[in-house]
Amino acid sequence: MSNPALNYRLRQFITDFAELLTKESAEPIVLEQGSQLLKQLIEHDDWLPDAFAQPHPDRYQQYLLHVDSAQRFSIVSFVWGAGQKTPIHDHRTWGLIGMLRGSELSQHYQRSVNQSLIPIGPAHQLQVGQVETVSPSTQDIHQVSNAYSDQTSISIHVYGANIGAVKRATYQPDGTEKSFISGYSNTLLPNIWDLSKEPATS
Amino acid sequence: MSNPALNYRLRQFITDFAELLTKESAEPIVLEQGSQLLKQLIEHDDWLPDAFAQPHPDRYQQYLLHVDSAQRFSIVSFVWGAGQKTPIHDHRTWGLIGMLRGSELSQHYQRSVNQSLIPIGPAHQLQVGQVETVSPSTQDIHQVSNAYSDQTSISIHVYGANIGAVKRATYQPDGTEKSFISGYSNTLLPNIWDLSKEPATS
Ligand SMILES: [Fe+3]
Ligand SMILES: [Fe+3]
Ligand SMILES: [Mg+2]
Repeated sequence: MSNPALNYRLRQFITDFAELLTKESAEPIVLEQGSQLLKQLIEHDDWLPDAFAQPHPDRYQQYLLHVDSAQRFSIVSFVWGAGQKTPIHDHRTWGLIGMLRGSELSQHYQRSVNQSLIPIGPAHQLQVGQVETVSPSTQDIHQVSNAYSDQTSISIHVYGANIGAVKRATYQPDGTEKSFISGYSNTLLPNIWDLSKEPATS
Repeated sequence: MSNPALNYRLRQFITDFAELLTKESAEPIVLEQGSQLLKQLIEHDDWLPDAFAQPHPDRYQQYLLHVDSAQRFSIVSFVWGAGQKTPIHDHRTWGLIGMLRGSELSQHYQRSVNQSLIPIGPAHQLQVGQVETVSPSTQDIHQVSNAYSDQTSISIHVYGANIGAVKRATYQPDGTEKSFISGYSNTLLPNIWDLSKEPATS
């Protein structure tokens, strides 16, 4: 499914996203224009190196693809094995979620007066090519699950920080918080910067 | 020689370098302040992951460590096996070279009136902890060799571009140019961004 000659897709996305964040600091604009950039990236499912698309039998994988030098943003490939899901969790920074392969369900929650978590409407399903957002200023608490019980799904996430280093929380339905730092599943990142091995495509 | 708990050294260097380039655009200031940052990084030889410190029996290695999102800079670990050397070459962007381990010799050249290359003085030797610069606006053509015929040497380089993608040249002593793009020796980069596996050191 991947081809090193197509590394320019992710490279261009990173360059464009850095330019966006240099020009715009207002979160609504970053989310709006960032969503458009992410839609362009996930329009094609031919660029994600296979090593960053592998499910794990026991747990969903979070493969870091890139962190901005100033940690203004990070890009992560989330790989959901059949039937896998996250705990209920928050992000504490803005996030963009773009569906690359398969499909996922996202259930948002809000706090009730007694601090317990109440679902906000039904879970909604993200299809290939679609992008959704999270943000502390709108909706930041959700649970994500693979929509499929028999196949892998993959979404590409962009966050307004080095997300693997952010101190945030998982939640029980009664609202009990547990502090966590997600880290990443991978110790090696893809080198998408070597143009000597590519045709002159970008 | 490496310890993942010390990833914060390279991470801090990247963050500081990005901040420098956001504040300063004048090359002499970037080279002066960037040299100070690089000196701090190479003050300790305990952070370079072993995978990016391996010599190759036949040729020097160029292990990419990081590229800035906007390709404003790149960081490369150059690993010189015993007796290895580069061809005479240029860079076409500014560069900083910091000696991490061992020692290397750098011979600079200038063009004569008939275009042939003339050495500028004798080769000078870079010792652990020292930094030198290259730049199209001062001296950009040199040849680098391991100062040792019996041990590996390693220098950390910072360039004002994604150096593996820059169209530049190697030279014969008569001045004949050959176009080249160096690329990188590695297809995977170190993930230095996972703070969940580190003590709170940074
Ligand atoms: Fe999430
Ligand atoms: Fe050089
Ligand atoms: Mg960057």
